[in-house]
Amino acid sequence: GAQGESFLRDAMPIIMEEAVWKATDVKEKVCEWRSPEQLKDLLDLELREGGEAHPQILQRCRDAIRYSVKTGHPRFFNQLYAGMDPYSLVGRFITEAINPSLYTYEVAPVFLLTEEAVLQKMIEIIGWQEGGDGIFSPGGSVSNMYAVNVARYHHCPDVKVLGLSALPRLVMFTSQECHYSVAKAAAFLGIGTNNVYVIPSDKRYAAHCCSLLLTGALPFMVNATAGTTVLGAFDPLEEIADICERHNLWMHVDACWGGGALMSKKHRYLLQGIHRANSVAWNPHKMLMAGLQCCAFMVRDKTNLLQRCHSAQASYLFQQDKFYDVSYDTGDKSIQCSRKPDAFKFWLMWKAIGTKGLEERVERALAMARYLAEEIKKRDGFRLVMEPEYTNVCFWYIPPSLRDMADGPEFWRNVHAVAPVVKERMMKKGSMMVGYQPHGDKANFFRQIIISPQVSREDMDFLLDQIHSLGMDL
Amino acid sequence: GAQGESFLRDAMPIIMEEAVWKATDVKEKVCEWRSPEQLKDLLDLELREGGEAHPQILQRCRDAIRYSVKTGHPRFFNQLYAGMDPYSLVGRFITEAINPSLYTYEVAPVFLLTEEAVLQKMIEIIGWQEGGDGIFSPGGSVSNMYAVNVARYHHCPDVKVLGLSALPRLVMFTSQECHYSVAKAAAFLGIGTNNVYVIPSDKRYAAHCCSLLLTGALPFMVNATAGTTVLGAFDPLEEIADICERHNLWMHVDACWGGGALMSKKHRYLLQGIHRANSVAWNPHKMLMAGLQCCAFMVRDKTNLLQRCHSAQASYLFQQDKFYDVSYDTGDKSIQCSRKPDAFKFWLMWKAIGTKGLEERVERALAMARYLAEEIKKRDGFRLVMEPEYTNVCFWYIPPSLRDMADGPEFWRNVHAVAPVVKERMMKKGSMMVGYQPHGDKANFFRQIIISPQVSREDMDFLLDQIHSLGMDL
Repeated sequence: GAQGESFLRDAMPIIMEEAVWKATDVKEKVCEWRSPEQLKDLLDLELREGGEAHPQILQRCRDAIRYSVKTGHPRFFNQLYAGMDPYSLVGRFITEAINPSLYTYEVAPVFLLTEEAVLQKMIEIIGWQEGGDGIFSPGGSVSNMYAVNVARYHHCPDVKVLGLSALPRLVMFTSQECHYSVAKAAAFLGIGTNNVYVIPSDKRYAAHCCSLLLTGALPFMVNATAGTTVLGAFDPLEEIADICERHNLWMHVDACWGGGALMSKKHRYLLQGIHRANSVAWNPHKMLMAGLQCCAFMVRDKTNLLQRCHSAQASYLFQQDKFYDVSYDTGDKSIQCSRKPDAFKFWLMWKAIGTKGLEERVERALAMARYLAEEIKKRDGFRLVMEPEYTNVCFWYIPPSLRDMADGPEFWRNVHAVAPVVKERMMKKGSMMVGYQPHGDKANFFRQIIISPQVSREDMDFLLDQIHSLGMDL
Repeated sequence: GAQGESFLRDAMPIIMEEAVWKATDVKEKVCEWRSPEQLKDLLDLELREGGEAHPQILQRCRDAIRYSVKTGHPRFFNQLYAGMDPYSLVGRFITEAINPSLYTYEVAPVFLLTEEAVLQKMIEIIGWQEGGDGIFSPGGSVSNMYAVNVARYHHCPDVKVLGLSALPRLVMFTSQECHYSVAKAAAFLGIGTNNVYVIPSDKRYAAHCCSLLLTGALPFMVNATAGTTVLGAFDPLEEIADICERHNLWMHVDACWGGGALMSKKHRYLLQGIHRANSVAWNPHKMLMAGLQCCAFMVRDKTNLLQRCHSAQASYLFQQDKFYDVSYDTGDKSIQCSRKPDAFKFWLMWKAIGTKGLEERVERALAMARYLAEEIKKRDGFRLVMEPEYTNVCFWYIPPSLRDMADGPEFWRNVHAVAPVVKERMMKKGSMMVGYQPHGDKANFFRQIIISPQVSREDMDFLLDQIHSLGMDL
């Protein structure tokens, strides 16, 4: 009614000012840190019998924005997504207002057609010349689950009806640096995490396959990673494709993060061989800035595998006596029922900046990562973990007090303690956000991620200056 | 940059005018039907090398809105969600601008705390006096998958590591009218659709359990439905709880649709016994109008079952040496990695209208359904399929030409053909949208769903008048 309308009219300028303009302004803070206890008090979380007046709700909107991390800020480097694209944001505002669900053409005509157009273009870019099929999913983890499910269905179609208890023990392979969602997928889909074999080097794939076959297990897929989460490393896809062909294994490429490089003629060699994959997961919400979520799962198959594997043919939704071509009702390919129109914002952005614009962004981000890596080499107290392959720049900061210490367990124990303290200080200051983590036997190091075209060389210099200034006393 | 900023400033009035005000105006059309072929031409779907100028992109926004179905329109009755709540919409605009991902407190403090507050309140309303745990998921289908996974993990914790091939055959029970996602869950999680036993009446549960145990299968859960998709019927939860307790079965209640009735002191008897469930799925984006998606999955368990069952402990995300209490980093309870802040919009709406406001909406929708059912009984040519228990009002329209025909196969064959034609005509006219489907051995009937407080008695009268006017010549 009129009251709701006036609320919406009052709220919009606040959203635009606080959550859009200020949230992306480099002169503003990235975050306004409060401890959980403090923030609970500030937000007054309790849900009560009575409602609140508009001025109070508007203040709650301001508070929610104020204490949120500004992921679109030029100095948010903490995750594998960043920045704010205005076209994508407009696309998202449109879809939130329209509130569609993508089961049938009848209720989501525009959003199903734009999804299909985006998928076909992504499939073309992967290099599947005969085409393919796909679906947008709520996250790369779910895309990887789709991969496991279609791979096992491809090998044993009975699994859908009979379940795994009627089959030999299925086993899958993955590269060592794979995303943790592969383990989650194995657990959730009933494969079991013990049946995921992590293979450190390609040559041993073959030996493993054979020994497993001998003990009655059925290897069915290899998960390769194009752009690992921490290091941004790329598996050798051609070699993995050779092995998969030789042993009749489904080849899935988790390119959720690294898929962005496919947009660049200069850098797509990193994914050389991806066209030989049976399935690919690729999240345009990461390197291509389409906004969360935007996650494509695609298969090279042309035999309606997604539909056959996932369909349940609900008669109340997928009626066969409709007046239009029901092959456009693609919802039954999905494991979801209600599904958000995650492709539309990407389609609108792509229309606005073109394939060329996406390419330029990716190349700029990679050039910026290269600049940062070279700066790190030049500066005292900074040490690269490895030469970056992608835009993950991983490095240690060594405070002056440790620079003369001999390399060894004690040195690394000390270095390990540096990043958490620097991170705490930067968050309390709100000056920037960058992630850190240990990795294998390596002590905590920073992982700087570069994505947004808003990020400048000055931001790279700022990052290093800031880490030094926050950690030099340690 | 400045260009993106000016685009955003130009686009916002279009979004508000076309996708908000007009899209909810009863005087405007619900949909502007185009066939897939026509719409492909109109939208110019192709993604090209070069980008397009702003006036063209603004026109694409207008077109996308124009040809989309207006699900917030007062005469959209087609699905189990409808209407537009201004507070929820503001919440969604905020979260789209902020673009958070809910893995850690570090990057999503406000959204993790509001999620927790909403879950605790929903758990209180379910009636779990000792509390419980929960997570928001991307759809009721995924919530039901969570239920299957925690239920089997509860019975056989080894399943996570060893997989189903190391266990006896797991079987689950469900009521006959359950959502099709239960079959999807059984297929996806490796249980197999054949291992889902559909039980028509409670008494036979017990016999089935015994006979299955004798043959080496392991029954582990019952899925009960509170508010079925088509008829809006409620399973007898107390009786099912008795059976589950007797046979040590996990009791899951799919209250995705019917959960809304819990907000009403007058109608919550429909879910009498839900406090005895082990897990509940409840989607506030349906009856409570929180906007897609908003889907809570909750467990009565207090032993960190969600975490134990789903965690993969990624060391790059869930570092244990952070400076704050990492028990607030709840992302590892989820099967997702990136996860949208679906609870926030609901929290904001709840703050604005209060528990009382939610209750009034639910009671108003149920009263409106009662009004419609009584109108149907009064009118020639309309016949109820059953007395509505909830806001699903299911009915046949019998055109004058069939009213004198004797009940029998030929009559029903004719009636079956009516709804698809009426639906085609209403969509081409754009006057309203209501679903139809066959059901079991019943011929196609309309399923009218009432949700939004914007819907009036005049809209109910309009619905019946319109169906008659569109179908009277058939």
